[in-house]
Amino acid sequence: MTIENALNNPYTKWMEGKGPHASIVISSRVRLARNLNDYNFPHLQDEESGRKVMELAKDALTAQEVQELVDGIEFMSLEELSPLDRLILMEKHLISPQLADGEGPCHGIALSEDEAVSVMVNEEDHLRLQVLFPALQLKEAWNLASKVDDLLESRLDFAFDEQYGYLTCCPTNVGTGLRASVMMHLPAIAMTNQANRFFMSLSKLGFVVRGLYGEGTQAKGNLFQVSNQITLGLSEEELIGNLTSVSRQIIEQEQLARDEMRKESLAQLEDMVFRSYGILTNAYIISSEEAVAHLSNVRLGLDMGLLRDVQFRKLNELLVETRPAFLRKLAGKEIDAFNRDFKRAELIRNSLS
Amino acid sequence: MTIENALNNPYTKWMEGKGPHASIVISSRVRLARNLNDYNFPHLQDEESGRKVMELAKDALTAQEVQELVDGIEFMSLEELSPLDRLILMEKHLISPQLADGEGPCHGIALSEDEAVSVMVNEEDHLRLQVLFPALQLKEAWNLASKVDDLLESRLDFAFDEQYGYLTCCPTNVGTGLRASVMMHLPAIAMTNQANRFFMSLSKLGFVVRGLYGEGTQAKGNLFQVSNQITLGLSEEELIGNLTSVSRQIIEQEQLARDEMRKESLAQLEDMVFRSYGILTNAYIISSEEAVAHLSNVRLGLDMGLLRDVQFRKLNELLVETRPAFLRKLAGKEIDAFNRDFKRAELIRNSLS
Repeated sequence: MTIENALNNPYTKWMEGKGPHASIVISSRVRLARNLNDYNFPHLQDEESGRKVMELAKDALTAQEVQELVDGIEFMSLEELSPLDRLILMEKHLISPQLADGEGPCHGIALSEDEAVSVMVNEEDHLRLQVLFPALQLKEAWNLASKVDDLLESRLDFAFDEQYGYLTCCPTNVGTGLRASVMMHLPAIAMTNQANRFFMSLSKLGFVVRGLYGEGTQAKGNLFQVSNQITLGLSEEELIGNLTSVSRQIIEQEQLARDEMRKESLAQLEDMVFRSYGILTNAYIISSEEAVAHLSNVRLGLDMGLLRDVQFRKLNELLVETRPAFLRKLAGKEIDAFNRDFKRAELIRNSLS
Repeated sequence: MTIENALNNPYTKWMEGKGPHASIVISSRVRLARNLNDYNFPHLQDEESGRKVMELAKDALTAQEVQELVDGIEFMSLEELSPLDRLILMEKHLISPQLADGEGPCHGIALSEDEAVSVMVNEEDHLRLQVLFPALQLKEAWNLASKVDDLLESRLDFAFDEQYGYLTCCPTNVGTGLRASVMMHLPAIAMTNQANRFFMSLSKLGFVVRGLYGEGTQAKGNLFQVSNQITLGLSEEELIGNLTSVSRQIIEQEQLARDEMRKESLAQLEDMVFRSYGILTNAYIISSEEAVAHLSNVRLGLDMGLLRDVQFRKLNELLVETRPAFLRKLAGKEIDAFNRDFKRAELIRNSLS
């Protein structure tokens, strides 16, 4: 039921809109890359070996002690999911685009009932464990990920090197195998035109800034994903601590930029926020790009107390609900670009009014 | 009180929004140009002669029989009005820009209580009598104008030539001295890109198409003023009849174009209408040009039954209320362009919500 529910309901744990700095930090993610000894990495895997990894992973992921820690965890082969359903999991950020595209019988997904814990099997690595929480909760996410990792390690023989740490397919993940990231809404920083310089300086400190759907995607709707670049040479706690502290600095910068906007150009700000609200609650045709831009303005207005009667949770849900796969699900059939824009507008109108 | 009321209230008779074809035809106007024998035309007038014309006009306009026909008619010298008040009368279409700019003691205005009848003294001609009704009511406007004209003629010695008819300052007005016009909202014709061709063909039939504030102004908000070019060689009834019948044809064209839009692109139409509504009810800063364009879309939506809960009267009022002079009146002080755009947005929000 867990995965079926996930496919039929746009809402997922990270959209909660509650927790520390929930208005600026949409979600916190911790991901651990793990591989099994004695089996080739997925890209060199034959089917037999792939099936064996699937089997071992399934057994470990659905073991009694994991069930006790992770409510309602369920395992499924990607083969059982239609292309549309895979896209839906991807749009909810529960699996990666690579896994969604994966062919053959050797790709799997495990998911907890609240969708905070997901494990991809035979993506780039044998196992990729993800914990995805709302707001700035990296430490909480790490704590849970670490516990799940311990339980899995008690059953699985992870490839681990005394000198290098956990071995991974891509050398950039070697060591802790940990990638932590926060999804942040940074409209004021983006508007100051200093965003690029600011993000460049973050990259010198070992952090990467990307768009909403990870590597190679653009920052739409002023949503930026900030993650650690380094996985080797620091402990997991240090990595999580560093990213948390950088996130706090970014939040502070964003707040300063917002204060400045409020002081210097309140009317223009209100105009921007309310025009976006007016368009979202009235338009009959809207592209994904336009919707995301207006949702960003409404979120900013909400956060700055200019606008009320909208919930952060609603805005988070709309980020996913207005994506193509969900709209197709909603329509119950294939729809062309025009009808997608029409459905999207309808959905947003109903959701915000 | 009549003129003072007119200055303090944006509403005026032609904004009523009721009557034949009120949704497409905003107003019908009949204007008669008259001059007095034995006095130079205004542009050649000395002050003594100008004052004498003012006196004669005032006596005639406030005579008992005129008072009985035209409720609350009041006469005032333009000297008694501040530049702002003159602009307000102009924005309400009760006096012309030329009269509003007139210097010296020899310019006058008479106005009826409902503001349907106005008479300018010493504008281009000695007297310019205007009757301005809501909707397509040219004949009704003409009937009233004719009655007032008869009463004035019984007291004043109008310059009249057996061969040419009424003599006027500009030869294009000679004959009947009658200019009739209708103010029409023609968004669908404008959107078909055939507007220019259509209006060219009207000009070949002796009709002129202009923007909202008459000669030399642009058609903003898809508002077009259609008037007769010819004043000589036809009777007043024929001129009024011809313009009425041309107006009906234009209305029919507009309706056809709207039916086509409804059939071919309803979603785009709804999108346009509701986006405009959303912006007008939410924006905090809006220019006059943008406001007029959105008001046009909302009017179209209202007329096509897409949008409810807005009154034509409100839209008509906003056409005038959102002009600079009224906004300045509202603010109670001089305001700069930015604050005008701010006040305008506030006024529209309050008016439409």
